[in-house]
Amino acid sequence: MPALPDLIGYVAALLTTASFLPQAILTIRTRDTAALSLSMYGIFTLGVSLWLIYGLFLHNPAIIAANAVTLLLSASILYVKIYNALTGRECPHTQEDR
Amino acid sequence: MPALPDLIGYVAALLTTASFLPQAILTIRTRDTAALSLSMYGIFTLGVSLWLIYGLFLHNPAIIAANAVTLLLSASILYVKIYNALTGRECPHTQEDR
Repeated sequence: MPALPDLIGYVAALLTTASFLPQAILTIRTRDTAALSLSMYGIFTLGVSLWLIYGLFLHNPAIIAANAVTLLLSASILYVKIYNALTGRECPHTQEDR
Repeated sequence: MPALPDLIGYVAALLTTASFLPQAILTIRTRDTAALSLSMYGIFTLGVSLWLIYGLFLHNPAIIAANAVTLLLSASILYVKIYNALTGRECPHTQEDR
């Protein structure tokens, strides 16, 4: 049985990784990205890519696996957001936030 | 100068934390949460709370600071999403995802 802090860390990693799955499903299903910030998903996807590289440097399977999954999910959300922005399929209020 | 992997880790932490700022600003400014997944922000906010507890256990200032900021930002987004859902201010397509 891992020590309590490690257990908390594993559950935290699982939750913060898994949390992007319902958003990816909602975005792919509804194609609605008006309320999603392009800056957030651009910066977040870059950050998660760096976490993945960090994990590869450390040869740490948990960091690699968690961030590979999160990267896939956030990149798919970012793709739909950029696609909508480029094809003009978004509501007006986010024009200035593209 | 920190080793390259540590530098990558610090930048990754900075980006994944800072990325929630534009989303929080957009959500608070537009009050539009239709495209945001309630499940995502619920699970993510719980996960970040656990990361904060993990950081407190380890007495690690970087983990504590990054996750305290992210918790504040994701909780504010979650608040607006729940407020909209409870007061019926959301578009129909996300009714089944509340």
